[in-house]
Amino acid sequence: MLTIVYLIAITAEAMSGALVAGRRNMDMFGVALIAFITALGGGTVRDILLGNFPVNWTQHPSYIYLTITAGLSTMVLARFMHRLQKLFLLLDAMGLIAFTIIGCNVAQQLDYSLPVVIMAGIITGVFGGILRDILCDQTPQVLQHELYASVSLMVAVLYLVLQHYGVNEEITLLASFGSGLAMRLAAIRWSWSLPVFYYAPERW
Amino acid sequence: MLTIVYLIAITAEAMSGALVAGRRNMDMFGVALIAFITALGGGTVRDILLGNFPVNWTQHPSYIYLTITAGLSTMVLARFMHRLQKLFLLLDAMGLIAFTIIGCNVAQQLDYSLPVVIMAGIITGVFGGILRDILCDQTPQVLQHELYASVSLMVAVLYLVLQHYGVNEEITLLASFGSGLAMRLAAIRWSWSLPVFYYAPERW
Amino acid sequence: MLTIVYLIAITAEAMSGALVAGRRNMDMFGVALIAFITALGGGTVRDILLGNFPVNWTQHPSYIYLTITAGLSTMVLARFMHRLQKLFLLLDAMGLIAFTIIGCNVAQQLDYSLPVVIMAGIITGVFGGILRDILCDQTPQVLQHELYASVSLMVAVLYLVLQHYGVNEEITLLASFGSGLAMRLAAIRWSWSLPVFYYAPERW
Repeated sequence: MLTIVYLIAITAEAMSGALVAGRRNMDMFGVALIAFITALGGGTVRDILLGNFPVNWTQHPSYIYLTITAGLSTMVLARFMHRLQKLFLLLDAMGLIAFTIIGCNVAQQLDYSLPVVIMAGIITGVFGGILRDILCDQTPQVLQHELYASVSLMVAVLYLVLQHYGVNEEITLLASFGSGLAMRLAAIRWSWSLPVFYYAPERW
Repeated sequence: MLTIVYLIAITAEAMSGALVAGRRNMDMFGVALIAFITALGGGTVRDILLGNFPVNWTQHPSYIYLTITAGLSTMVLARFMHRLQKLFLLLDAMGLIAFTIIGCNVAQQLDYSLPVVIMAGIITGVFGGILRDILCDQTPQVLQHELYASVSLMVAVLYLVLQHYGVNEEITLLASFGSGLAMRLAAIRWSWSLPVFYYAPERW
Repeated sequence: MLTIVYLIAITAEAMSGALVAGRRNMDMFGVALIAFITALGGGTVRDILLGNFPVNWTQHPSYIYLTITAGLSTMVLARFMHRLQKLFLLLDAMGLIAFTIIGCNVAQQLDYSLPVVIMAGIITGVFGGILRDILCDQTPQVLQHELYASVSLMVAVLYLVLQHYGVNEEITLLASFGSGLAMRLAAIRWSWSLPVFYYAPERW
């Protein structure tokens, strides 16, 4: 089940990356690269930080083809996509949750300690979007708008707590997806966000 | 032959990096760092992604000295360099091709699959320039202007096809350089570029 | 001694990172992430470049807690911190020196050659700040203002020279800190900076 959600998620992430590249007037190659990095960059950063070689996507050429194809298709499909914005926000939220759980699993299998496992989940969830924004020369969106990274943190903690108490794997996954989706969609609907730190000093 | 082209290429890349740093009014240290990263950053990203430790330049101190010297010299030579702009575009194109072929070779020796080999070539070719632009706070040029990354892709594919059919190594290299240079210089001369994706929505 | 200075340093770096995040109006999560990366990013880049896995902070959860707590506290403390600006500049300078020496030591233990050892020191010293600026979408400060990276270079060279001549470890550390602090504080006091490279051409 997680694999199917994962494939849908990297497709959705690739398309969202392509749209941001389009706002920067990138060429086809740039669109493909940003789509690839948005979808697979989080897992790549995680694998490198954890010393988990070979990096995941290098062993799955299909992920490369899928994300690049999704990115390039977006150049054609973009004009129709604003009607699907809600669907995309849903797919993006599912991706965030799937990435987080997969990230936690990878770090656990490498016997990292609990805080590193949680960070591996969050990094897998949010770093694709952060790399996309760095490459597109804008301040990372996930650190400024509605609850996003926080959803990743909540999902990681819930998942690990349920797992720790020996709850059935399927129930754990369902509970993680259910509460994560609810939190993310509620955050979008009612513009929930974390307290923002405004700091405007004379030169520091 | 490839080694000599490589040394010329990292020198030219270092100097081009230094010029971009100069446009950001960086100090000597910044110029040296940007020169180093522009020249050797592509290979570094490739080695890290492929888990190919130790990273290449850490075993060749001469590359460190060469790129830093080239970067700092540019601070003095910049005023004369606009006359050499065409020479530099030629050296840059040769560097792109040499980096691409070297990148493919490295991934092949590590037994990565074909799509990863091609991506390793492209990453070696273009990521130095991408890192330079990230550090200089501008949208990556190689994803916006005339054919550049596409030349890298074409060279990688041509090189691997010729190699696959057992063509003599020297002929393979000559064909790759010849067609790569022709494509890049024609792209500059006639402003060939890939289709650009313009996307200007209401907030996504 | 170096460990205590290190803990103070990562706390100070985390707080300085949080302030920059605040100027970008990041949310709590962004502040925590930028604080973490500013404090521990330099060592992380060093470990990855040197192939030194597991990355240092993954084995010390206390560093994670310390830097995140320091970052979040800054959201409350910021209004009082401008009075402490001089103290912070001092702590930041001590951190730069401690990071540099630690970075050199790590590369030495892995038997890297001298230029790589020096670069490992500088990278540990300055890359936290560079990553902070990349994430906050500004040109890296350490490459533009008063002597900073140069202090790191000077400390690395002095430390390695004294060590090479068999000078007592404590004297080596004291001399490195003493001269590094003197150089950095003098640079701030009298606005010492490296020659800047101004380059404003027609399109290159």
